[in-house]
Formats: sequence, C-alpha cells, structure tokens
Amino acid sequence: MTITITAFEAALDKGRGLARDMRVRWALEEVGQPYAVRYVAWEEFKEEAHLARNPFAQIPTYEEGDLTLFESGAIVLHIAERFPGLLPQDAAARARAIMWMFAALSTVEPPIIDRDVVKYAERGKIWQGERLAMTDARIRGRLRQLSARLGESEWLDGAFSAADIIMAHLLSRLEGSGLLEERANLAAYVARAEARPAYQRAFAAQKAAWEANT
Amino acid sequence: MTITITAFEAALDKGRGLARDMRVRWALEEVGQPYAVRYVAWEEFKEEAHLARNPFAQIPTYEEGDLTLFESGAIVLHIAERFPGLLPQDAAARARAIMWMFAALSTVEPPIIDRDVVKYAERGKIWQGERLAMTDARIRGRLRQLSARLGESEWLDGAFSAADIIMAHLLSRLEGSGLLEERANLAAYVARAEARPAYQRAFAAQKAAWEANT
Repeated sequence: MTITITAFEAALDKGRGLARDMRVRWALEEVGQPYAVRYVAWEEFKEEAHLARNPFAQIPTYEEGDLTLFESGAIVLHIAERFPGLLPQDAAARARAIMWMFAALSTVEPPIIDRDVVKYAERGKIWQGERLAMTDARIRGRLRQLSARLGESEWLDGAFSAADIIMAHLLSRLEGSGLLEERANLAAYVARAEARPAYQRAFAAQKAAWEANT
Repeated sequence: MTITITAFEAALDKGRGLARDMRVRWALEEVGQPYAVRYVAWEEFKEEAHLARNPFAQIPTYEEGDLTLFESGAIVLHIAERFPGLLPQDAAARARAIMWMFAALSTVEPPIIDRDVVKYAERGKIWQGERLAMTDARIRGRLRQLSARLGESEWLDGAFSAADIIMAHLLSRLEGSGLLEERANLAAYVARAEARPAYQRAFAAQKAAWEANT
C-alpha cells in the first residue's frame, strides 16, 4: 500500500533538514519503505484539505490506505511498529525506546523550539537578549542531564531505535549555536546519527525537493 | 508485580491535581491496578537515587519489576498497552489514539506550560504583560483548532482512551484562566473527563497525599 507524507513546498530552512518531515523520511529509509510526498504550499495549510489531514495545520502527515496520521513522533512510532528495525523485540527495551521518544519531544525539544521563537518571533523586542539567555540556560540544563545519562553509549538505550531518530533530529537544530558543541558526547551522538546511510538518503531527498520547488 | 510511581512530596499546586503523577494515577485507576507511591522531597530530585529513575529530575516515574520508566506520556501509554481498557483493539484506531497522545504533549501542551513560565519565572520582568499576551494568543490558536476538530464528539477519537487522559489533564491547567472557557466544547470535554470515577479516585488520592505530607 502506498505511503504518502506531506512536507513544506518551500521549507524555511532552505533544505537544511530541520523540518519535521526529515524524521519521517529518515524512519522510512531505515526500514526500507518507499514513499510519495505531497508538497504543501503556505497558503494551503489552513485549507480544509490539509486541516482534514492535520487539524493543527502542520507537516508532516502520513497516509496509508484509510489511515491518516499527524505528529512526527506518532508517525515515526507507527512506522517502527509497522516495519521491523526501529524498536527492540524485548518488551522492557521496547517500552524504554518509546519512553525516550516522549522524553525527546516533551522534555528536550520545547526549550529548543522556544529558542527559535525568541530569535525570530521576538526579534526587535527590547527583552530579546535577556530571554535568549534564559532559554539557553534551560537548554544547557537539559543537555547536561542528557549528556550525563548518555555517557559513552552509542545510542540512547542499546541498539539504534526510533527514539534516536527523534532525539538526534531535534538536537541537530542546535548545530552551530555553540550549545551542542559544549557537550562533546552529544555532538558526537548527532554526528553518528547523521552519518547513517538512511539519514543521508532522507537528507538528500528533502534537499533535492527544496531545490526543485523553489 | 507491584507498581510503584513517584510524586512530589509537597506539590506546588497544593493538591489541585496539576502535577503529572495525576495522569499516571488516573490511568492506573481506569485499568483497575493498585499502585504504591514513593514521595520525593525537593532536595532529593537531584540526588543519584532519583536521577537513576529519571535523568531529567522530574516526576512521575514508574517501576514494575526490572522496568523503570519516566515521562508521563510514555508511562500512560505503557499502562494502556499492558492492561486492557485504554486503547482501541482496531489497529488504525489504536494508531490514532497514540497520535493524539503525541499531539497533546508536543503541540497543545508547550504554550500552556510556557504560560506558567511567564506567570511565575518572569514575574516582575518589564515584558511580562506583553509576553503573556503572546502566549495566550498561541494557546487560543491551538484551542481553536482543537475545538474545531472535537466538535460535538465526546472524546478525541471514538471511545475514551489514554489520549483523553493526557489531553484533558493538560487542558485542566487552563481552568480559571478564561481561555478554556472561551471554547464551550473543550470546557465540557474536560468536565466530562473529570467526572469519571477513575479521575475522582486519582484526584482524591493525590489530594490526600498533599494533606498528609505537608
């Protein structure tokens, strides 16, 4: 059955792999499943056709037969349950991998997204500098905790899993900020994830789409 | 096998049910599983014993035999997979219920938490009023979208599920703000969730703990 995902027609990151369709592309590449992409233009996000796929007017979405899903975390977990390779067989290890997906999205990602809100939506506000410092302090706290837990491990919990896709992708948003680079084991973790052939294929596909669509 | 969760010894909400152990208590009540609670004092959060349970120094956690989990979303999903009653049998409906858990935590909750950051951590800042207005606008946007999708449905997607525990609980943080009350169907949704006997039992348990511990 054909899998169709949605992505920005013109992503604001200009093909740098930051949009959340990367997570879904990467997961599909890891499990070796082909997919089609429906590119959504900015003016289409709040139209009924897209809101039927995602009531929150976001990408990515996932369509396969009668099933339509939104939320990158949910889609990556669905792919990991549907096709082998991204979740451990052992029940406890599987529960921990899913736990890391939630931890990445609920605990690690919010201050990282907030940093972009400060940088772009609060540009020109007199408080921008002070808010950026507060946001960076929150991010540093989370990275310190994550770094301590990861230690010298290759991946979050045993073998590479769906959780590493989510965590490495959201940490990649910090590349070049200096924050990720303060924690050598986290910077190496992201680099290791991005060196995977499946990541490389997904990255090339979204970059080629940006170049073709703009 | 005994299930043990963690909760604040002295929750800042004074037993109003806002701390995230409520989600886990509520899920366990829905599936009829008894549990023990380990109360964690403020000074214990950053000690090794608690960091071994949760590297991000948060509650709740979940321990059952050799398995230790953190993150309320992951714990509620684990309970829903472990015991019947909180996830549909049908594969597509099950995937959608899990999708709503991610949507609640990744898309709906962050601006609601940010509102508390503005209210408490940014108290006295000259920008507090303007930031609160910006945060409220983001929350209103999400509530408008959620309200449109929910319509007159009783629950998010068919029967009551683990997703309704997460969504109703995080929306309950807005009670009294005026924001939730602007969307009558969402206010009714939260009230319907809180009227469930399992919620009532969980609420009474965490309130009794606050009264006993402080």
